[in-house]
Amino acid sequence: MKYSFGSDNHSGVHPKILKAIEKINSGYSFGYGEDKYTEGVLDKIEKLLGGDCKALFVLNGTGANVVSISTFLKPFSTILAPHTAHIIEDECGAVERFSGCRITPIECQKERGSYNGKISPASLKQYLKFGDQHKVQPKILSISQPTENETLYTIEEIKQLSKIMHQAGGYIHLDGSRISNAAAAMKLSIKEIVAETGIDSFSFGGTKNGLLIGEVIVVFNKKKNKEFIDNLCYIRKQATQLYSKNRFIAAQFEEYIKDNLYLKMAQHANKMATYLKRKIEAIPQIAITKKVETNAVYLALPFSKKDIKKLQDKYLFYMWDEEKNEARLMCSFNTTKESIDELIKDIRSLIK
Amino acid sequence: MKYSFGSDNHSGVHPKILKAIEKINSGYSFGYGEDKYTEGVLDKIEKLLGGDCKALFVLNGTGANVVSISTFLKPFSTILAPHTAHIIEDECGAVERFSGCRITPIECQKERGSYNGKISPASLKQYLKFGDQHKVQPKILSISQPTENETLYTIEEIKQLSKIMHQAGGYIHLDGSRISNAAAAMKLSIKEIVAETGIDSFSFGGTKNGLLIGEVIVVFNKKKNKEFIDNLCYIRKQATQLYSKNRFIAAQFEEYIKDNLYLKMAQHANKMATYLKRKIEAIPQIAITKKVETNAVYLALPFSKKDIKKLQDKYLFYMWDEEKNEARLMCSFNTTKESIDELIKDIRSLIK
Amino acid sequence: MKYSFGSDNHSGVHPKILKAIEKINSGYSFGYGEDKYTEGVLDKIEKLLGGDCKALFVLNGTGANVVSISTFLKPFSTILAPHTAHIIEDECGAVERFSGCRITPIECQKERGSYNGKISPASLKQYLKFGDQHKVQPKILSISQPTENETLYTIEEIKQLSKIMHQAGGYIHLDGSRISNAAAAMKLSIKEIVAETGIDSFSFGGTKNGLLIGEVIVVFNKKKNKEFIDNLCYIRKQATQLYSKNRFIAAQFEEYIKDNLYLKMAQHANKMATYLKRKIEAIPQIAITKKVETNAVYLALPFSKKDIKKLQDKYLFYMWDEEKNEARLMCSFNTTKESIDELIKDIRSLIK
Amino acid sequence: MKYSFGSDNHSGVHPKILKAIEKINSGYSFGYGEDKYTEGVLDKIEKLLGGDCKALFVLNGTGANVVSISTFLKPFSTILAPHTAHIIEDECGAVERFSGCRITPIECQKERGSYNGKISPASLKQYLKFGDQHKVQPKILSISQPTENETLYTIEEIKQLSKIMHQAGGYIHLDGSRISNAAAAMKLSIKEIVAETGIDSFSFGGTKNGLLIGEVIVVFNKKKNKEFIDNLCYIRKQATQLYSKNRFIAAQFEEYIKDNLYLKMAQHANKMATYLKRKIEAIPQIAITKKVETNAVYLALPFSKKDIKKLQDKYLFYMWDEEKNEARLMCSFNTTKESIDELIKDIRSLIK
Repeated sequence: MKYSFGSDNHSGVHPKILKAIEKINSGYSFGYGEDKYTEGVLDKIEKLLGGDCKALFVLNGTGANVVSISTFLKPFSTILAPHTAHIIEDECGAVERFSGCRITPIECQKERGSYNGKISPASLKQYLKFGDQHKVQPKILSISQPTENETLYTIEEIKQLSKIMHQAGGYIHLDGSRISNAAAAMKLSIKEIVAETGIDSFSFGGTKNGLLIGEVIVVFNKKKNKEFIDNLCYIRKQATQLYSKNRFIAAQFEEYIKDNLYLKMAQHANKMATYLKRKIEAIPQIAITKKVETNAVYLALPFSKKDIKKLQDKYLFYMWDEEKNEARLMCSFNTTKESIDELIKDIRSLIK
Repeated sequence: MKYSFGSDNHSGVHPKILKAIEKINSGYSFGYGEDKYTEGVLDKIEKLLGGDCKALFVLNGTGANVVSISTFLKPFSTILAPHTAHIIEDECGAVERFSGCRITPIECQKERGSYNGKISPASLKQYLKFGDQHKVQPKILSISQPTENETLYTIEEIKQLSKIMHQAGGYIHLDGSRISNAAAAMKLSIKEIVAETGIDSFSFGGTKNGLLIGEVIVVFNKKKNKEFIDNLCYIRKQATQLYSKNRFIAAQFEEYIKDNLYLKMAQHANKMATYLKRKIEAIPQIAITKKVETNAVYLALPFSKKDIKKLQDKYLFYMWDEEKNEARLMCSFNTTKESIDELIKDIRSLIK
Repeated sequence: MKYSFGSDNHSGVHPKILKAIEKINSGYSFGYGEDKYTEGVLDKIEKLLGGDCKALFVLNGTGANVVSISTFLKPFSTILAPHTAHIIEDECGAVERFSGCRITPIECQKERGSYNGKISPASLKQYLKFGDQHKVQPKILSISQPTENETLYTIEEIKQLSKIMHQAGGYIHLDGSRISNAAAAMKLSIKEIVAETGIDSFSFGGTKNGLLIGEVIVVFNKKKNKEFIDNLCYIRKQATQLYSKNRFIAAQFEEYIKDNLYLKMAQHANKMATYLKRKIEAIPQIAITKKVETNAVYLALPFSKKDIKKLQDKYLFYMWDEEKNEARLMCSFNTTKESIDELIKDIRSLIK
Repeated sequence: MKYSFGSDNHSGVHPKILKAIEKINSGYSFGYGEDKYTEGVLDKIEKLLGGDCKALFVLNGTGANVVSISTFLKPFSTILAPHTAHIIEDECGAVERFSGCRITPIECQKERGSYNGKISPASLKQYLKFGDQHKVQPKILSISQPTENETLYTIEEIKQLSKIMHQAGGYIHLDGSRISNAAAAMKLSIKEIVAETGIDSFSFGGTKNGLLIGEVIVVFNKKKNKEFIDNLCYIRKQATQLYSKNRFIAAQFEEYIKDNLYLKMAQHANKMATYLKRKIEAIPQIAITKKVETNAVYLALPFSKKDIKKLQDKYLFYMWDEEKNEARLMCSFNTTKESIDELIKDIRSLIK
């Protein structure tokens, strides 16, 4: 396929990452992450995140969520999450299957008439009721940064949500499968966004940002969350997320954080989204439907279904809201200006 | 680490496999296995296995077992397995966690005084009792070929076990994480070992035989097992085994089955095990403790714990039975004669 | 406590039911429902429900829901239910824990500004999407009759919901913990409300209508639902709902359906609710907030929190919506006119 | 049925217990155990058990085991139990379904050539291995007193098992569905057998000893086990074991412990077993096959299958080991000498 604006997963692997895989491919090594090399890379990641945390490699985003959330749960716990959350909409019930616990959806905020993927402190508070033996008990809030709609919580907003959960005796999880895009957009370090806002549990995404495969799960606050940290390795194995040749993920992440490759790739993706947004804004017939904060542009296409189909055949992308003709265009680490220019040209000619 | 006889996972990736990954890394592609290329490779695999089957890619062996077994279960089903099975001993309860079903261990047969990892038709039959509402109900038998002790069921033995399960209204699963080693040793095709012996559900291993990552799960008999096949994709996702960039597994498997690379790698590993076995047999002080049928050699080391430790530091391997000083030496696709010769020399000098 | 309008569970056991328990208490009997007497009573219940069904005794309403719903599920199935459903709001996640499946809440219809506990065919249809491997798949709709707000679906409405589910290849479950109140109110037999509207799975409540303990679960359509019927006894045991001395539930149900005791008790409860409603309607300061269809009256109390507390101390009842001062007054098989008259008097004197 | 030696569940309800049920059946009461009366009875039970514990009512033995064991588990925990345990053999996988955790069977000790239902400290220790991420981690040992074969652990034996578990950072559960028979046989209080031997979690059986329905679950050591105690009420509800009309179980237990009715019933059952044993011992052709310690007698019947069937038709009992013609004869609170005498007469006449 020539171009895709469908998902950051449609892109392949950054050449430097592939190189790193080749480089590690010699000799023999202990399996299952029990080799010194893997431990060393995890150490570097922990340092990047401020140090007071435990990091482990897992295979994919769904697995990262299952492991990093489940460790905090009791059988009757419920996970709170925005109703648009990936763990609700896109993981086929993986968290519920593994944990047996309910995810309670909290209705998101609306902006420009559509959901922005964020929940407010006020709506969260309404769900924090405890002590009735007939009801599941809230234990952990799971948010994404950026959200499922590629919008961003401010640092202050995350701090507030963390504080509310902690005051209620609970915890907060951040799905960071695109955290690099957030860091690039906010011009802040992941440490500032995650470790310093009170987040207990976090996944540091790789696959959506130029890796072949691999994510990191992290639990912060070693003292307070000791029990949950101690459980991680068993839950990872039980959740089928332990990779026998861990060093091949480690090598990717070593390269990923060296010289800020993760940031550079995300900055590029975000920049391309901004470029695309500006080009779209110059077309009066098309409305941008959500705030462009990271690497996605949502827009209403003024075309017939047939024309949209034609456009999708050349530039793979998804319709977000069929009724409103709302499309989502994602940019990635290897999106080019040329592809955007070509797309814009084709859109303009369809308008005429 | 210079040498490892610890596990076939301690080896890295075959150069041809890495090449295949590089080659596929261009352009854009649908994610989650929904691209034409991935479908095409799966098609080839299905043909290799006889055609009447459905194949899907998953990430690892534990995941393969969870998905390919769970699709057959009801809540009150029990899985039967030899008591030495990988799903019992080495997967931290992953199958039970996902399915909520019990694995009922069946005591293995003994050979030369130790378990050979195989169960007999007679012992299986004792577990096939149905209809008591107080008891879990047998549904599927899970065996490995080669077994956890790298021994082999004969074709006739597998056929018998299949027949018993089918006559009881049940199913049979074969964990083939090392099936290539079995095929190489038996001089039979995987189709002959698996498809033609009545196996319902199967995993075709890759990671332990020179791949970077990836396994295939297969359900045979499209008509009879239609319902179970229809469920596979949802269970794969729910079990966190759906990989967003599926084409990178597909590319490895395309190379793996092209020109029989999977067989060649396994043949080499088996050959090295035979070579090692002969060298050991020439040392009168050391007994081979299990039949050498594929790529592992079990032997009783006549050394002190301290000497064993010294040997392990240079040639990573695991003690199988500490009490009996029984060690397991695994060979892999890239084990060399030189490493074996050096090991034998060091063993001989320890004996003196 | 002198009076309770809190729940039909606050009442005890009908004297005839206790007599039936005493009468069966002699000699010895097979346990776990495997005695002829229990089988005979189940036979009578099956006949009452039209014959084409399988009935089993269970211990309580939550257990009834767990067993009668779970038998229909696959791991990745989702149960659809009105967002006010008992299985969502009042069972501490029991269905999710046992099945590992999500309950997807569908927003109820509103009447007089508040939810009536019913879902419409149109809203149901929006949730019947199938085939996306990232999403849980709808399998069964669970409704209650009467609903959690003691309102009633019409026969036509139930038929429509059944038809929609069946056309989508799914099933429909009816939580009938208060079905006798529905039958009494609608002047229809349970058979007409349940068996003849296409319901697949049903619980026939006892404990809330004058029994000591016991519910019946029923799966209809023996041919179509054979597999689900065959599973029931194992799921009942596994869900801890198999009672060793089953004949003591059987004896209660024999008395319950003999001479329509179940209907008579429900008719009385409904009649008392109507009586209470009329008395309230005569007080201009108080608004009835939901339609009174069975044995509950919802009303907005024009009192201070302190006065409400005083009233609750004498006549136990629950506040349904604290913000709106909305109270729920439940009548039961042994509610008396005297208690209602006294309550009304006290309410009137609080108004002055 | 005239006589049953099949199970203590085949007997009905003690007349005093039925009276207690009738007596409580007046007025109204809070449901779900939240009434003062239920709390008062639980208080008395806690005092009987030494005071440092939390007691809750549940519905049946399987439910008691599910709730009282699950509160101690993490997802990757395993429960250790003798291979003959009720939770393994007779509960259709209920504990595994609810908890998702494996029960690891430990082979029982043998006495007189057959299993006595007890495990030894030495065999327990072999299973206490921790820290391997590929393996489920032992967390709680579950034993029964008396065992499934109605044999008894000595106080010293229980203390040893408790100590081993506690030293390993684990817990110990005692299934006391027949604990009254143990107390009667050992001439010790339940407190001495359970609270003072280090047991963490316990079920105090009622249904098998003359109650209509009801068991008590107890967690000891309020300080150490605070977290597990706090979870009990939610797990009870989620496991479908919360009874809406709790006061009807409370009333039975109040009567049960008043004037030691529980002990008197158990003493009678045990006495009858001793009486039966003596009568059997006087018949040279019949061997007693297990030690008679509480209320069961195991014996080898020297009859044809046909004659056994004839005997079973009149005196319901179960064959324990069909191959050895081993039968189990259970006595209960209302077994009579007359029934035993008649049985012995019929056995003697079959021998001739």
